Amino acid sequence: MTSIDSLQALTTRLAEFVDERDWDQFHNPKNLAMALAAEAGELLEHFQWLRADEAETLSQAQREAVALEMADILMFLVRLADKLGVDLLDASGRKLDLNRQKYPVEKARGRATKYDQL
Amino acid sequence: MTSIDSLQALTTRLAEFVDERDWDQFHNPKNLAMALAAEAGELLEHFQWLRADEAETLSQAQREAVALEMADILMFLVRLADKLGVDLLDASGRKLDLNRQKYPVEKARGRATKYDQL
Amino acid sequence: MTSIDSLQALTTRLAEFVDERDWDQFHNPKNLAMALAAEAGELLEHFQWLRADEAETLSQAQREAVALEMADILMFLVRLADKLGVDLLDASGRKLDLNRQKYPVEKARGRATKYDQL
Amino acid sequence: MTSIDSLQALTTRLAEFVDERDWDQFHNPKNLAMALAAEAGELLEHFQWLRADEAETLSQAQREAVALEMADILMFLVRLADKLGVDLLDASGRKLDLNRQKYPVEKARGRATKYDQL
Repeated sequence: MTSIDSLQALTTRLAEFVDERDWDQFHNPKNLAMALAAEAGELLEHFQWLRADEAETLSQAQREAVALEMADILMFLVRLADKLGVDLLDASGRKLDLNRQKYPVEKARGRATKYDQL
Repeated sequence: MTSIDSLQALTTRLAEFVDERDWDQFHNPKNLAMALAAEAGELLEHFQWLRADEAETLSQAQREAVALEMADILMFLVRLADKLGVDLLDASGRKLDLNRQKYPVEKARGRATKYDQL
Repeated sequence: MTSIDSLQALTTRLAEFVDERDWDQFHNPKNLAMALAAEAGELLEHFQWLRADEAETLSQAQREAVALEMADILMFLVRLADKLGVDLLDASGRKLDLNRQKYPVEKARGRATKYDQL
Repeated sequence: MTSIDSLQALTTRLAEFVDERDWDQFHNPKNLAMALAAEAGELLEHFQWLRADEAETLSQAQREAVALEMADILMFLVRLADKLGVDLLDASGRKLDLNRQKYPVEKARGRATKYDQL
């Protein structure tokens, strides 16, 4: 099995996979964003008719199917990041800092309200 | 700035962020899948009216806005993985192996056809 | 207020709205599909942190916000149908007939299982 | 074939279809919003690797497949409207009026810029 130990390794493996198939011609940012959103739709499909408690106790087979959908999302995200020159972990650090400002603990505690209505 | 050097570190930081705000009550798998898909929709919005060539030459401001949407997607994906006990990089390795079988180089080369129609 | 009494009337009004703004250049099927999916993402956002019972008892303000997102989805759907020459009600009749075959009452009753696993 | 000549007729037919299968228990607003977004993801899948010009010249088979996805979206939208007591055509009239204010012809003409940046 292909062993992948970091986002950087995944980026490299995906670039090889795409290159072998001459698929880079399809992987412009617009198309990759669409493919990512389509995979997010497939993820939804697994959960749409489940009650919240059922969604927390998936069978082993369901969990593996969900894990593979999540892998699809990650892979298109990593491809898009590669094409745009975005560092996903850096961007996550920046976004987390922004979220700390938008959702201060004392105001956001226990509330799912959007920041502009807090 | 928060420095994050791996998916594992991001997982830990997000768990702390959520815990401080008592948001775990909202983060069941069903809700996280919805939030992830909603962020994928926001990503689409950046690209929907752009021609393919415009999408490849984003301004610095557009690229940063897109990077922060991508961070949102990654963060909900990491949260979901944490709740379900999924290892995202492992799952990506498994999915990449499956894709190698579904899309053999000699059949898939240069074609965007879905595997069941190759 | 603009009064619209049928999908056909909506189709005409939207074509005028788009024509006045010279937006037809942006409304190719690919872009319209993206815009529709982005609006579906905004719809999700209204429900993502709500429990099932909360989602059934929206406030008047929430319900109106949701209604306007639903209008956005319908409008892009109608635009896409117009561009592709699809009759949405006809297509719905065909799809409903297919669904009757895929989900026979005796097998599907009370079960949310996908047809290929019934 | 089932003939459907209005959104109202579609609403009635769908309610019957759901009732026969005892599926109303799954059709709360949250679940319906997810199912709609999942169908929007399937719509994307048809267009994601196509160039804009290819998306405008679908084969007959592709067009029918797309039409059936669009029917799925419309049907979940109509179900959701039914459950929430929303009149989709009325809401579209209200939204169109709002869009006329947000996108005045003289400012929006020929530009795909979002209203808050016009």
